[in-house]
Amino acid sequence: MNLDKLQNWLQDNNLDVAYISNPVTIAYFTGYSMEPHERIFALIAFKDAEPFVFTPALNVEEAKASEWNGDVFGYLDSENPWQIIADKIRQRTSENKNWAIEKSDLSVAHCQNLHEQFADADFNNDVSQFIERLRLYKTPEEIEKLKGAGAEADFAFKIGFDAIRTGVTERSIAGQIDYQLKLQKGVMHESFETIVQAGANAANPHLGPTMNKVKPNELVLFDLGTMHEGYASDSSRTVAYGEPTDKQREIYEVDREAQQAAIEAAKPGITAEELDSVARDIITKAGYGEYFIHRLGHGIGKDVHEFPSIVQGNDLVIEEGMCFSIEPGIYIPGFAGVRIEDCGVVTKDGFQPFTHTDKELKVLPLKD
Amino acid sequence: MNLDKLQNWLQDNNLDVAYISNPVTIAYFTGYSMEPHERIFALIAFKDAEPFVFTPALNVEEAKASEWNGDVFGYLDSENPWQIIADKIRQRTSENKNWAIEKSDLSVAHCQNLHEQFADADFNNDVSQFIERLRLYKTPEEIEKLKGAGAEADFAFKIGFDAIRTGVTERSIAGQIDYQLKLQKGVMHESFETIVQAGANAANPHLGPTMNKVKPNELVLFDLGTMHEGYASDSSRTVAYGEPTDKQREIYEVDREAQQAAIEAAKPGITAEELDSVARDIITKAGYGEYFIHRLGHGIGKDVHEFPSIVQGNDLVIEEGMCFSIEPGIYIPGFAGVRIEDCGVVTKDGFQPFTHTDKELKVLPLKD
Repeated sequence: MNLDKLQNWLQDNNLDVAYISNPVTIAYFTGYSMEPHERIFALIAFKDAEPFVFTPALNVEEAKASEWNGDVFGYLDSENPWQIIADKIRQRTSENKNWAIEKSDLSVAHCQNLHEQFADADFNNDVSQFIERLRLYKTPEEIEKLKGAGAEADFAFKIGFDAIRTGVTERSIAGQIDYQLKLQKGVMHESFETIVQAGANAANPHLGPTMNKVKPNELVLFDLGTMHEGYASDSSRTVAYGEPTDKQREIYEVDREAQQAAIEAAKPGITAEELDSVARDIITKAGYGEYFIHRLGHGIGKDVHEFPSIVQGNDLVIEEGMCFSIEPGIYIPGFAGVRIEDCGVVTKDGFQPFTHTDKELKVLPLKD
Repeated sequence: MNLDKLQNWLQDNNLDVAYISNPVTIAYFTGYSMEPHERIFALIAFKDAEPFVFTPALNVEEAKASEWNGDVFGYLDSENPWQIIADKIRQRTSENKNWAIEKSDLSVAHCQNLHEQFADADFNNDVSQFIERLRLYKTPEEIEKLKGAGAEADFAFKIGFDAIRTGVTERSIAGQIDYQLKLQKGVMHESFETIVQAGANAANPHLGPTMNKVKPNELVLFDLGTMHEGYASDSSRTVAYGEPTDKQREIYEVDREAQQAAIEAAKPGITAEELDSVARDIITKAGYGEYFIHRLGHGIGKDVHEFPSIVQGNDLVIEEGMCFSIEPGIYIPGFAGVRIEDCGVVTKDGFQPFTHTDKELKVLPLKD
């Protein structure tokens, strides 16, 4: 169990207490998922004592009813949470000098709040990298959930492609996707805001869906994903609405070739930066290198972006069980954008994608 | 302009640099709104130099096309953002010893990254409280946007009430609300996940919409809001599906009375904790005090939860221009939950709500 590994890590590093503050990390260790907004939510683990979860009073019953079997302590809005956490920790153990915190998540203010309660303690140890490494290798159970999320993304593409017609807004298409995901698949959360971009809007990779209306003979880019049993999907497809021009077809085919080559190269032993180069070189040779303005991919799991980062400068060796996206893009300002993206898992036989929507250029008939 | 106030504050406190990391604060100061996920996004302001925005390269064009008129600098995924920020700061000014950071937002890791670039600098000054205070008083322009968001919430209630029928899931109702908001109102983001809770589910105040099906003679609780030109709405209503029982009607009427009394008391001069007590005393006297398990309300603005907190222990004096929610609730485990919530602004003439959906108990006819 992952929480045992955390406890072992504390013992190996002779640390007394781990203060886990990232809600996704807490869900990873406990099975209990919650978004605390400005309230305090933490998992406290110990070298030599039972871990506990700390939540707002509002969430105590929910936490107790969750998969988490350990103690849950709460605080009222009118109470000082730091005092209560400190009391509970001191009740658990008198060894509380050497702490590990999630430096990539914990705010400076919260770290100081803890420090005030434990004035002599050392808060210089970071548990973030240990957790990143732990989360880097997915178990078969996690991979099943990622596949489930991928299947929902494939469903979403179908809804989106069907919704394209002349004059429909990007936002309406995105709304129809989200609605049908809720209604037909029971999807509670998208993993990020559903992106639908028509024509030149697709040249801004992170622009949300606007009131821009789809016009004939544009490329339409979809980037979407869902949360499925706590695991994310993330996939992109680009389709032509009406017959594409030669130029539209050309950038599509270059991007598709780059994505396919990277998928074939994503095997144990290649490094992250080598994999990035496989796709980047194809796009660069075709003359579009300057328009591929982001890394090839990112890890996926409980977070839609996690480790590993498939990027120049990262010499991490890819291994079995790592899950990430392969998503080259070509973005030509004022003209169009193309991105083709699948997430998948590296196996000894290669990369197994979680999404299966066809990647031959789909040409949709014009509809009024 | 707010950014001038920040610069004045730096001068008054003899600080050289402010590193603003909270995306909502950046939007407040610059008009440019973006969610960077794990990438770096910052506003750097100076005592004696021009501020600049720092974003991933992906977002540079978008930032330049936004309301923000100052410089925008970017970094590629393959570059070290901290080195680039440091270079840009040193190009701006040689005075970079005394920093102010947003302690409530900046992670310990990012603070250390900055510290490595400016080894001799002092990062102990917190700009969070100054910003909270600045954002506490809303301008007439901000209030107009909050009213616009409130009108969208009123629209959402209509869609939700119409969607209730026997056997429909909470999630389907929530999906219909979100879809119609996108389609008819062009709403791009809800301010939080739309909550629909039928029967005993409503006794868990933060439970998202489930696949639970609405049954006749249940209370159904809605809690929802939208983002409108960068400002949030947040409102709750509880309706009866079919004739309510005496007990259901009783808790509804107690909660309504508490909410109405607090609205009438929300005038300049009362403290936050006194206002909380106005509602809490009514619920306690009626015998339901133990079931009102959260504060009376929270501030609202660009964030759906911000200052002031209307809570026991907060002796802040309420003044004109403050905007917050008034949302007493009664949650009886295994039975039902009621919450009635309006956000509004305090004026010299009292509290002006941003939402206007009727608060007499609405009894919806049964539908198959």
